[in-house]
Amino acid sequence: MGGAGWRGHGAVLLRGEAADRGECARAIGGSQYTRGRERSRSVRRTRGRAGDLTVPLRLPGGRPGPARPVAVRAGTTVSGWLDVPDGIDPGTAIPLSVVRGRRPGPVLALVAGTHGYEYTSILALQRLLPRLDPRRLRGALILVHMANPPAFYGRRIYYGPDGKNLNRVYPGKADGTVSERIAYVLTREVIDRATHLVDMHCGDANESLRPYAYWLVSGNARVDRASREMALAYGLDHIVIDRSRPKDPARSGYTANTAILRGKPGLTAESGGVGRTDAESVGAHEAGVQSLLAQLGMMEAPSVRVAHPVWIEPSEVLRSPLAGVWHPAVAKMQSVAAGALVGRITDPFGRLLHEARAPFAGEILYVVATPPVSQGEPLAGIGRLVSERGARAARRSVP
Amino acid sequence: MGGAGWRGHGAVLLRGEAADRGECARAIGGSQYTRGRERSRSVRRTRGRAGDLTVPLRLPGGRPGPARPVAVRAGTTVSGWLDVPDGIDPGTAIPLSVVRGRRPGPVLALVAGTHGYEYTSILALQRLLPRLDPRRLRGALILVHMANPPAFYGRRIYYGPDGKNLNRVYPGKADGTVSERIAYVLTREVIDRATHLVDMHCGDANESLRPYAYWLVSGNARVDRASREMALAYGLDHIVIDRSRPKDPARSGYTANTAILRGKPGLTAESGGVGRTDAESVGAHEAGVQSLLAQLGMMEAPSVRVAHPVWIEPSEVLRSPLAGVWHPAVAKMQSVAAGALVGRITDPFGRLLHEARAPFAGEILYVVATPPVSQGEPLAGIGRLVSERGARAARRSVP
Repeated sequence: MGGAGWRGHGAVLLRGEAADRGECARAIGGSQYTRGRERSRSVRRTRGRAGDLTVPLRLPGGRPGPARPVAVRAGTTVSGWLDVPDGIDPGTAIPLSVVRGRRPGPVLALVAGTHGYEYTSILALQRLLPRLDPRRLRGALILVHMANPPAFYGRRIYYGPDGKNLNRVYPGKADGTVSERIAYVLTREVIDRATHLVDMHCGDANESLRPYAYWLVSGNARVDRASREMALAYGLDHIVIDRSRPKDPARSGYTANTAILRGKPGLTAESGGVGRTDAESVGAHEAGVQSLLAQLGMMEAPSVRVAHPVWIEPSEVLRSPLAGVWHPAVAKMQSVAAGALVGRITDPFGRLLHEARAPFAGEILYVVATPPVSQGEPLAGIGRLVSERGARAARRSVP
Repeated sequence: MGGAGWRGHGAVLLRGEAADRGECARAIGGSQYTRGRERSRSVRRTRGRAGDLTVPLRLPGGRPGPARPVAVRAGTTVSGWLDVPDGIDPGTAIPLSVVRGRRPGPVLALVAGTHGYEYTSILALQRLLPRLDPRRLRGALILVHMANPPAFYGRRIYYGPDGKNLNRVYPGKADGTVSERIAYVLTREVIDRATHLVDMHCGDANESLRPYAYWLVSGNARVDRASREMALAYGLDHIVIDRSRPKDPARSGYTANTAILRGKPGLTAESGGVGRTDAESVGAHEAGVQSLLAQLGMMEAPSVRVAHPVWIEPSEVLRSPLAGVWHPAVAKMQSVAAGALVGRITDPFGRLLHEARAPFAGEILYVVATPPVSQGEPLAGIGRLVSERGARAARRSVP
């Protein structure tokens, strides 16, 4: 894709006047921290419009008290905390940065740390932030540094303290439990302001995972084409085609699906796992974001676009029929034949309770690498590689 | 140590008559699973006496309902579930095996999985069980395969579902929360029956740890000498000397300390970490147990006794003064100078909040390897190596 490729993807432009409204942050170009100051005239804000970058934030070092609308000036970066108020359980504050370029362009949301034990995305955004020079940027970036602080600090796997998976409860509920309220706030304050979105993941604490992206096919041809280009631009050469996500925007479930069902192209990217913070896995996310900035015409940056992707469809999650001690028999990335042993579940004494076998020939996308499993929990993700003939047909037939 | 070395360590002999009382398990030598049968005469049980191997168990495949006292016959192995009844929160069932030799000897308790995310010990006991031939054994082994099932299946770090650290609440409470009730049951049914104990650990899910043992010095010269010999026999060449554990048996806190304060020599052994199940870390526990069996004169087995230990005293846990994102600057096993940077804590945006520094020159025993840290949580364990002169003096002065 050329440097101005985003224009072809239905991007809604950042409205240049946004910075002239509401409370302004006194920011110098590239500064990471800015303090707000009150303005005498009333704050006019338009919710749910892509490109509106007046965000309610508590700024580090700012006055205590509730968040105030902060209009991010062109050519500046503002970091602060997006409040998720207390409700039927304790709330949280989501660390968020807005990097606003001098020229209009797409508004790309990068969501890290939806699952509390997935660290590569959080570290990738930490590393990217100081290198995202707003003076060199077209459009804007919204970095959600840590979508799920209670799960992060609680070192929780899959679920938040309310027992809910944040990546299943979108678009959230204003009066729900904390995961639902996080989803509600992120839908309203981040997804609704964005034109494009990347939901950045890795294998959870217990998942040994090969890097791959999800291309979510919604049925909206314009969005699906743009999402496909984003997935290729991100540079992970294995791309799972997933047509199974919900199609009702009121029950979108997943972060990226929420954006897509609202007409904003997006992808889910997976790199890393088992609680690791290895430079290779973090670096894949960094390289993917930079490549996407180039593809969307937002910044000059190295492209890692995949020229020869391995498309995967279908993919299936093997689940445990019972609780026990899991002994994986495969490693991530390996090919398995149909019926091959994926792993065994024993009781604590070592007696065999269950053998998990591959439902079809394919590749191990991830495998649970730690012993505890309970009924219904994932054991492994396996994907079937689309044949060359299938891939050629797909190139012709995809929207 | 010679093959009959245990005799010198104050071992209380397994009372040969134990198998003639209570409900007997019909077991064949070496069989891993046995079913109980009811006996018409009443069950006479003496609690809290080392060597009494009539244990209340639910046997796999046995009748539903409460556990029944199972007397383990000489030359047999019985595996079953030790109930921790429901109380003010849900209870659990602890998987336990008793391997009883044909001849009298020490009763060695092996406690695995006190912390739910520490897997090497659980896998080591699974691997050891089929190789522990009761016909070749003197005395008996009590294998606690998984001391903390709610923490294991909940993939919990440090704490159980009640927010308590099982390895701090011994000797437990019959009417406490689940961690306290587990400690109560294990004290009563395992520690009180044992003559020696190994508490098998590794670094928790977030801890990258070098292998080492704790020699807990209680002040009881006989027990301390025997505990020291056990630590050497276990084969981990770094041994932390810890004189700081509680001395009141009613507030013993730790598993191994509970045994020691009851006159039963013991150690805590650490091998593995960060949720890994690597063969090397599991194998160190297996080799340590086998070597200990040889040292205690319980079984002919390869010795890995340490001839030239690295004694460590003092050791200190560096703790976080605040919540944030941890970036370790050291690796396990490395030496650090006094004042050396151990790691940094940033906020989610990457701004430096705190630098953790080594309080003295020493070796990194473990370092937290994952980003989340909250106030008061460990960041690293550092130990000072006892000098050669100090080690020589210690050899003369230790009890």
